[in-house]
Amino acid sequence: MRIAIDAMGGDHAPDEIIKGALEARDLLDTDDELILIGMQEDIENCLSSVNASPDRIRIVHAPEVIGMNEVPVESLRKKRKSSIAIMARMATRQETEAVVSAGNTGACVAACQLRMRNLEGVIRPGIAVILPTVGGPVTMCDVGANISCKPINLYQYAVMSSVYSRQMLGIDSPRVGLMSIGEEDVKGNDLVKKTRDLLKSDPDLNYVGNLEGRGIFDGTCDVAICEGFVGNVVLKLTESLVGMLFSAVKQELVARSTDLAMQFKPVMTEIYKKYDYHEYGGAPLLGVNGTVFICHGSSKSRTIKNAILASRKFHMNKINSRITEFLKNSTLRPNGA
Amino acid sequence: MRIAIDAMGGDHAPDEIIKGALEARDLLDTDDELILIGMQEDIENCLSSVNASPDRIRIVHAPEVIGMNEVPVESLRKKRKSSIAIMARMATRQETEAVVSAGNTGACVAACQLRMRNLEGVIRPGIAVILPTVGGPVTMCDVGANISCKPINLYQYAVMSSVYSRQMLGIDSPRVGLMSIGEEDVKGNDLVKKTRDLLKSDPDLNYVGNLEGRGIFDGTCDVAICEGFVGNVVLKLTESLVGMLFSAVKQELVARSTDLAMQFKPVMTEIYKKYDYHEYGGAPLLGVNGTVFICHGSSKSRTIKNAILASRKFHMNKINSRITEFLKNSTLRPNGA
Repeated sequence: MRIAIDAMGGDHAPDEIIKGALEARDLLDTDDELILIGMQEDIENCLSSVNASPDRIRIVHAPEVIGMNEVPVESLRKKRKSSIAIMARMATRQETEAVVSAGNTGACVAACQLRMRNLEGVIRPGIAVILPTVGGPVTMCDVGANISCKPINLYQYAVMSSVYSRQMLGIDSPRVGLMSIGEEDVKGNDLVKKTRDLLKSDPDLNYVGNLEGRGIFDGTCDVAICEGFVGNVVLKLTESLVGMLFSAVKQELVARSTDLAMQFKPVMTEIYKKYDYHEYGGAPLLGVNGTVFICHGSSKSRTIKNAILASRKFHMNKINSRITEFLKNSTLRPNGA
Repeated sequence: MRIAIDAMGGDHAPDEIIKGALEARDLLDTDDELILIGMQEDIENCLSSVNASPDRIRIVHAPEVIGMNEVPVESLRKKRKSSIAIMARMATRQETEAVVSAGNTGACVAACQLRMRNLEGVIRPGIAVILPTVGGPVTMCDVGANISCKPINLYQYAVMSSVYSRQMLGIDSPRVGLMSIGEEDVKGNDLVKKTRDLLKSDPDLNYVGNLEGRGIFDGTCDVAICEGFVGNVVLKLTESLVGMLFSAVKQELVARSTDLAMQFKPVMTEIYKKYDYHEYGGAPLLGVNGTVFICHGSSKSRTIKNAILASRKFHMNKINSRITEFLKNSTLRPNGA
């Protein structure tokens, strides 16, 4: 299969992106091809600086770059020859089976939504991240594609995330929780209450009830559903809180004894490894008619490598047709709520 | 002043509640009085088991108790003689200057809202918690009193939290951030965009812009404003994530060496002390016509003690009249949005 990579996207582009692509190439099949999209000269320089063979690597020149802080839709309109715009166009024209980007998330989501259209039956796509927890990986959707959700959107996120969790993580019957402010059925805002009714009505979903903030990390669910506003806050909060706590620990240790700090280092490394969400590479934009993986702007080569591998698994496991199938058999038609 | 305490509220009631009250008594003025509300016999037994002197302690008998998981409004209607109902009634009748409860939060908020009415000019009360961060304490409001906010509600939370932050934490000109999904002005849902305009229009507020999830803990603000739904998720997530990380560290340490784990123990204790939100005791219900402090259901004596002391400071620093004053001088009248 062909996987297109936005070589210009992210804080460490193009070097780390290309490095990640090369690392992934070694693990892909011999008939897979990686397409690097971006400034041809920059990419070529980068490839030759590491003496990379040109095997199964193709470059598609994109003379424009969308910056990380540009306004998404506006920048897409202005920069039709940016790596993100070209990447989405290639997916639409079936010139690639998957796309991966660590660039401007808003622009990437907008480009894919505008160009690739939605999967049959899907009303609004959502971004799903995998959060490592002591109880195992939890898939949370949406984390920012759709900040004003309707109940049917959340229901579809539950469907898509369940399929994703099953196919990507091997969780047989993923337990779906709905983010709310209390576990009891009476708790929650209007959106939560209406969504709950939809989730309950579908016997093919393993809906386990409302989820409090603490429920994401305590092993009560495999899939956590919420509007993009809440999911985005949760995701960024989690990242920063983990970082803050570890630096507080480090500061305290160094103040006490350098020796103790040194002894603690491998412990930190081990925990980072266990709960490192970079391991999962990137987050799919579920619900578009294609395979789209979005990576964090700070991604280094390992994340890019893992995202490329994940996009391959996503495509090979036919997640999109399984989603379409699920929705087709659902008693809840889009106009049902 | 008189401070009424719900002796039956919380997972460790009445023992830890009464213990906290006794600890607080030692630190209060000689003309302060603590009123313990609850089952007279239970309270008396508890007091005599620790040989407590009856000085400045009064018991008000409440023959009913609202359980932690009862439906708030329904339980209040049924149990008019519960400690929470009596506590709120006493505040209304000016039989106490402050109330403190670690009981059913929903019932406590509902009882106080229904009985005590709002401060002049305030449309909806909000619960404000103080989160300790590396950049100093951050006041977050609302964390669950109001899950369907209007822009004017969020504006008023900014006003009330600013006054609270100034008077309780000594922060001269608290920087107010508005929870959103991106720092740029264009980011956010409709509520965020409309609220931003209100916050910007008031020169008496030190509004510093949108706040991402990571912004709560990175020192960019002193006050974080959000709807109760988001705030509640953030609060509970923070609690559980911190707990999860520390137990992951502990597990990893013990697996390596008991000796290393022992050496690390004082480091944990120190960090817990530095970032322990129990230090701040409880969360005020800002905007009601009185002083109400709500404590976590898991509160032990130290939290109750600190909440009692905080309620005294709240009352003595005339926070409510300062809020009323601020709103009176505001160009934004309740009907302005």
